[in-house]
Amino acid sequence: MQYFDCDKIQFEGTSSKNALSFKHYNADELVGGKSMKDHLRFAGAYWHIMRNDLSDPFGGGTAQMPWDDGSDSVENALTRVDVFFEFLDKMGIEYYCWHDRDIAPELNDLSASSAALDKVVAKLKDKQNETGVKLLWGTACLFSHPRYSQGAATSPDANVYAYAGAQVKKAMEATKELDGLGYTFWGGREGYSTLLNTNMKREIDHLAAFLHMAVDHAKKIGFDGPFYIEPKPREPSTHQYDSDAAACLNFLREYDLMDRFRLNIETNHATLAGHTMEHELTVAANAGMLGSIDANRGDTLIGWDTDQFPTDIHLATQVMLVVLEMGGLTTGGLNFDAKRRRESHEPIDLVHAHIGGMDAFARGLKIAHAIREDRRLLNFVDERYSSFDKDIGAKVESGQCSFEDLEAFTQANGEPTVASGRQEMLENLVNEFL
Amino acid sequence: MQYFDCDKIQFEGTSSKNALSFKHYNADELVGGKSMKDHLRFAGAYWHIMRNDLSDPFGGGTAQMPWDDGSDSVENALTRVDVFFEFLDKMGIEYYCWHDRDIAPELNDLSASSAALDKVVAKLKDKQNETGVKLLWGTACLFSHPRYSQGAATSPDANVYAYAGAQVKKAMEATKELDGLGYTFWGGREGYSTLLNTNMKREIDHLAAFLHMAVDHAKKIGFDGPFYIEPKPREPSTHQYDSDAAACLNFLREYDLMDRFRLNIETNHATLAGHTMEHELTVAANAGMLGSIDANRGDTLIGWDTDQFPTDIHLATQVMLVVLEMGGLTTGGLNFDAKRRRESHEPIDLVHAHIGGMDAFARGLKIAHAIREDRRLLNFVDERYSSFDKDIGAKVESGQCSFEDLEAFTQANGEPTVASGRQEMLENLVNEFL
Amino acid sequence: MQYFDCDKIQFEGTSSKNALSFKHYNADELVGGKSMKDHLRFAGAYWHIMRNDLSDPFGGGTAQMPWDDGSDSVENALTRVDVFFEFLDKMGIEYYCWHDRDIAPELNDLSASSAALDKVVAKLKDKQNETGVKLLWGTACLFSHPRYSQGAATSPDANVYAYAGAQVKKAMEATKELDGLGYTFWGGREGYSTLLNTNMKREIDHLAAFLHMAVDHAKKIGFDGPFYIEPKPREPSTHQYDSDAAACLNFLREYDLMDRFRLNIETNHATLAGHTMEHELTVAANAGMLGSIDANRGDTLIGWDTDQFPTDIHLATQVMLVVLEMGGLTTGGLNFDAKRRRESHEPIDLVHAHIGGMDAFARGLKIAHAIREDRRLLNFVDERYSSFDKDIGAKVESGQCSFEDLEAFTQANGEPTVASGRQEMLENLVNEFL
Amino acid sequence: MQYFDCDKIQFEGTSSKNALSFKHYNADELVGGKSMKDHLRFAGAYWHIMRNDLSDPFGGGTAQMPWDDGSDSVENALTRVDVFFEFLDKMGIEYYCWHDRDIAPELNDLSASSAALDKVVAKLKDKQNETGVKLLWGTACLFSHPRYSQGAATSPDANVYAYAGAQVKKAMEATKELDGLGYTFWGGREGYSTLLNTNMKREIDHLAAFLHMAVDHAKKIGFDGPFYIEPKPREPSTHQYDSDAAACLNFLREYDLMDRFRLNIETNHATLAGHTMEHELTVAANAGMLGSIDANRGDTLIGWDTDQFPTDIHLATQVMLVVLEMGGLTTGGLNFDAKRRRESHEPIDLVHAHIGGMDAFARGLKIAHAIREDRRLLNFVDERYSSFDKDIGAKVESGQCSFEDLEAFTQANGEPTVASGRQEMLENLVNEFL
Repeated sequence: MQYFDCDKIQFEGTSSKNALSFKHYNADELVGGKSMKDHLRFAGAYWHIMRNDLSDPFGGGTAQMPWDDGSDSVENALTRVDVFFEFLDKMGIEYYCWHDRDIAPELNDLSASSAALDKVVAKLKDKQNETGVKLLWGTACLFSHPRYSQGAATSPDANVYAYAGAQVKKAMEATKELDGLGYTFWGGREGYSTLLNTNMKREIDHLAAFLHMAVDHAKKIGFDGPFYIEPKPREPSTHQYDSDAAACLNFLREYDLMDRFRLNIETNHATLAGHTMEHELTVAANAGMLGSIDANRGDTLIGWDTDQFPTDIHLATQVMLVVLEMGGLTTGGLNFDAKRRRESHEPIDLVHAHIGGMDAFARGLKIAHAIREDRRLLNFVDERYSSFDKDIGAKVESGQCSFEDLEAFTQANGEPTVASGRQEMLENLVNEFL
Repeated sequence: MQYFDCDKIQFEGTSSKNALSFKHYNADELVGGKSMKDHLRFAGAYWHIMRNDLSDPFGGGTAQMPWDDGSDSVENALTRVDVFFEFLDKMGIEYYCWHDRDIAPELNDLSASSAALDKVVAKLKDKQNETGVKLLWGTACLFSHPRYSQGAATSPDANVYAYAGAQVKKAMEATKELDGLGYTFWGGREGYSTLLNTNMKREIDHLAAFLHMAVDHAKKIGFDGPFYIEPKPREPSTHQYDSDAAACLNFLREYDLMDRFRLNIETNHATLAGHTMEHELTVAANAGMLGSIDANRGDTLIGWDTDQFPTDIHLATQVMLVVLEMGGLTTGGLNFDAKRRRESHEPIDLVHAHIGGMDAFARGLKIAHAIREDRRLLNFVDERYSSFDKDIGAKVESGQCSFEDLEAFTQANGEPTVASGRQEMLENLVNEFL
Repeated sequence: MQYFDCDKIQFEGTSSKNALSFKHYNADELVGGKSMKDHLRFAGAYWHIMRNDLSDPFGGGTAQMPWDDGSDSVENALTRVDVFFEFLDKMGIEYYCWHDRDIAPELNDLSASSAALDKVVAKLKDKQNETGVKLLWGTACLFSHPRYSQGAATSPDANVYAYAGAQVKKAMEATKELDGLGYTFWGGREGYSTLLNTNMKREIDHLAAFLHMAVDHAKKIGFDGPFYIEPKPREPSTHQYDSDAAACLNFLREYDLMDRFRLNIETNHATLAGHTMEHELTVAANAGMLGSIDANRGDTLIGWDTDQFPTDIHLATQVMLVVLEMGGLTTGGLNFDAKRRRESHEPIDLVHAHIGGMDAFARGLKIAHAIREDRRLLNFVDERYSSFDKDIGAKVESGQCSFEDLEAFTQANGEPTVASGRQEMLENLVNEFL
Repeated sequence: MQYFDCDKIQFEGTSSKNALSFKHYNADELVGGKSMKDHLRFAGAYWHIMRNDLSDPFGGGTAQMPWDDGSDSVENALTRVDVFFEFLDKMGIEYYCWHDRDIAPELNDLSASSAALDKVVAKLKDKQNETGVKLLWGTACLFSHPRYSQGAATSPDANVYAYAGAQVKKAMEATKELDGLGYTFWGGREGYSTLLNTNMKREIDHLAAFLHMAVDHAKKIGFDGPFYIEPKPREPSTHQYDSDAAACLNFLREYDLMDRFRLNIETNHATLAGHTMEHELTVAANAGMLGSIDANRGDTLIGWDTDQFPTDIHLATQVMLVVLEMGGLTTGGLNFDAKRRRESHEPIDLVHAHIGGMDAFARGLKIAHAIREDRRLLNFVDERYSSFDKDIGAKVESGQCSFEDLEAFTQANGEPTVASGRQEMLENLVNEFL
């Protein structure tokens, strides 16, 4: 098959002028003793690559998909699987992610939809075996169908809630069947449009009950990969319950779900929440809860999730600094939850887009590794907090200190002399490596 | 004394054209069996009323303060106390709030500053006794002095941390001395400017240790009012740790501080965090953690804390709907953390500003009460969730349900029919009462 | 026919508890000697009422449209006309607006589409004659079809540009046929996604040439109503050329188009551009260029055009203050470019939504009129600028003043004493009338 | 003198680990036949370097200024001049900019302030002669003094307006005395806080009259450099009249001021207005109105002007692409209107900060030049519009085309085939050069 008008993309280095080559991503090149591909664990998103027709609220789809007959048939769904694996192969991407309704159609009733899913999953399993590609995570689409217009696990209607539970049950089983490394819960429409018609407490209690059922079901079917929660604010519900990493952690702590869940952090969701990506990653990592990453980029002048490809080298560097600091990703990866602009409507634009993202993260990885090896940045930070390594600072960290101790110390030592934070110098230092 | 060119502001009702009267706030009028003043518990903010010179980043102070000699003397501080109580008396406001450094000057060393504070506290105590005014809460200013430029309880420097501890110790003791009903921790500069120079984990651990010391010290001195944490994002640090209600709750849960703390929610902080005020209030209330309110209003087209007076009747209604739903404020109140515009530089503008806020909340209270008495809104919400009162929904709420149960239910019941959310009808209903 | 489950909506006054009645909008009631309906000139938007299926980027349509067979047939289009006029009749709305592709389908080629349009226009003409309803304005949809993905009059492709010209020609002729009072150019995709592939100068030159052709064509066909330009930023193109009122005026001035064009100002577009609605209205009115209004409301915490119904009484008051100040709308009106929330999926929700908007504007009109009659607000403003009515101020206004004059005046008069801006007092004054 | 603890900063190239060296900026290195310093024309901002104490709305100044006695004396002002020229010399910066009140104190009356200004100007003139440093532009501070709290040239008070005129007259004369290359009008407080108390039309008329007086006065004193208007939204007035480039151009066109004025575009002002820097630069350049640049960077997650140093290489590249396209800056330059973070309080932090900005722009210049030499990007854009070089497209550009022509063309040619916009490929192409 040849739906993407190119050969397998090769690493050609920075001197190449070939737009269809990697300038930086060299899968087996070692960085700090580990190959780039093992560091980065790139994943393709089935929904953007195969199902995003590039429609927007002001116009219909523009994407050319010569392989797709536009129908909801299982045959059409099976055809897409071949095209998708052609794409992964040409890009050298070894992981992927899906929503149940991306890979197989939603049909007239639950049983029919589940049967269709089984057929596609069987083909995916064959393709995985053929190619060695792995499923990074699966998830259920609980937001597109009109039944979910008012939420799924937070729907005010118990009938909808039940439907969502049945759908997730099946999606978890499909993930298990495909040896998925994880299973993701993105908030979808779990939130509200107006408090006037909403009982927030009851909705969140229901959500927690739902997730506990998922934990129980995983045990039953022997799925022991992590569950991921993916924070996102404002879209599609005006108020999403999982608005940022802290909101998710608060919820997981309140409802005793910390053990089984990790966070899947996405760049554009972070910025919509008013945070930097490195902030959200660090909040998650500090709690031991950073599981996986949705790699994309937003436009901070635009107020919605633009899901652009992550071509910003500085941003990729920040992400990889956090990932290297935590010792690398384990079950998770870098999933390109990113789409081409609507004007980039040819299949080859998908190739350009992924090259850009992969090269940017390859550079980010190399730069972050070099910054860490250089040690100047890390040493600066260690030194900045060194007063907490001894004396009164150490006493504070030991949990043995009181306000009386602090008062006595201050009376004895007087006004502190504060050192410069040197932000500009440190920004220059990072620029040295870019 | 007569620094505010008006008599005590009287309730004159809606037919009055006198700008210096209340049209709606009638302190002793009963609403639902409780007086307006007991519902609303208005507090004056010492910092805005007495110390805000209305400077901004582009220009110096404009506020006329004929009583103030501009010095940092204790005498000047004592004079301000009289003026402040004149203001409270004329407004009929019975609570107030302060930062230690608003009421008394920061002098050359900690001992001198503490001694100055003692003198002002003694006078405040006398005035409280004379007038019956109560201290809603006290707090320490841990953000203005250059020593705190990189944080106080999250400073990278243990010497600064110690100074902050000593200062809070004294501020808590002053609060106790004045029979303060609560003590507030606003984040101040607890956050960071750049992750490049920051160890976020270590800083937050230090903050938790600090608050545990506060809990211990309260026990020692017999202060048993609540501690309040006040969420705020982005200001003054680019990233504030206490960015919103969920972030605060997550922190309090992680560090086992839920028992002793409550949240103090401010309107403009909520909107800067990308939430509505009613969202933040509800998040806090649902966790049993809504303690007090900083009543003001932001300009959502402007990206910083404008601290405008809360004159929006719709907003006041939303606030009071949450407050009435939770059964009313107990130790907390409605503190006007609000300032006049820089162009409103006369003392009388303070009077106009507070009249506007008090009248708006009086209307909000009456409207919210009427909406609740009418029951149409509340009944709509109850009905909307009624499928969880019985059958499969009740099973979900009991914690006894599994995904298999939900699947079986869906197979038996098929596609749900979703009812309209009726947002527009409900918005019209609220408008009926405005 | 009876697609909307209600009788004609009646004015029942504020004591009515009937959700399907007007509490404030009383069409023939006089306000300042003119009927409410002549002040407000409400228009229904064909696209939202008949064609918006309430899909969003995360899910398909939810709107129940039992009259619509889902096809692109002319028959279906003709059926919708009847339903639309039932709606207008029940609401008592006497104007409407359309895009060509809302009222009739886009078919395989331009001729077929034009022929379909002719058939629907003929029926609309009949319905107009039957009912007395008038066309406030027509416009061409130059943004939905994939051919326009990179713009229409600013497309980089001359073939697309030509297609757009042909389409506008026809839409103008249809507007003329229906005695439309105006014709609107909303920016659609006239803008760009990235400057990397864009020649902004050339695109804007092309746009100006296009509008000059429209002016010429209007002359040819005898259409002498105003053309409206509708400012909007950020959507659907990342950068829209007509981003706000000032950008539109700058363009119209540069290309000598001021005579024939006016602005159509929309609330949610104003706020997305970082302005208040009253700012944009005033900018347009001051230039003598305020033509018509798209009445809706945004959610300033959300970064896109939410097109909510304008139920905010304070906002409606601000709008009507500007409209009354300029002497009222003439050819233009208040077009409800507003949609129900996706969860409000029943036809009756359209009725609730429009009731809310019409009642809010009725209140805004009455309040604005009362504020103007009261004169306190207007007198305050006149007085504030009174130093420009005489002496050096009058000399400035006469254009006879020089910097030497100002210097001499200042040397003679010394430091000015500035009066308070009294913003808080004025906000309270407005609240008196709400 | 030695207030900055470093020698003159040298170019040491990318292999240097010396934080106090340029890695990229090599003043005399030729890029496209012109030296870096002639391309970039860096200017130091007197206000940030000498007068910014790094206070913020939540706390006082932190900046260490051992040379400054904190007084408003002329002697202190003269001392600062020496320190400033030490800084420029060490940085190798050959231009500078000032506000009148930065370089000399505002004293009790206008005459005293003017006399103080004369003394400092005399010293600046000597230093310019000694060093060859040039004044890029001067301006008057019309926003800090309380008299200007409600605007200067748009003040409602003619006395304030007169004072502003007198002050600008003097500042223009000082600029002339120092052979200033230009004179800038930044909007300051020319705008409003609330429309309730504002006559926008009258204010803007007054502003135009003011600028015409400036034009007349320039003629009188023989100052023939350009006047610059600097767009900025939201700060310090809630609504600034000069909100973005288009608003400024609209104003200049309306009041017949295009000939004598150019725009001074600042990065952070562009982003606060919802535009990219390259958008604003291009709007100005397309109108032949790009005069000068205030080089800094904002934080798009933060809602105010953070004035950070421009260390983003991608951004510097975008700026230089526009500047090279327009043929380079002539009278204008790149003025670092940027400040250190409040935590970077030592004098040496000023040096780090400017090194970062200068190196980033040196890289931006080299990269932009290389992209232009490479031609792939420019050729892509030319090709994209090539259908307007011939046939119907050329007819459009000639102004000879009508809607009938476009209709006939479309009927003959049918549905256009649109080419991909290739945004992702072009973003990758730019990344090749970073």
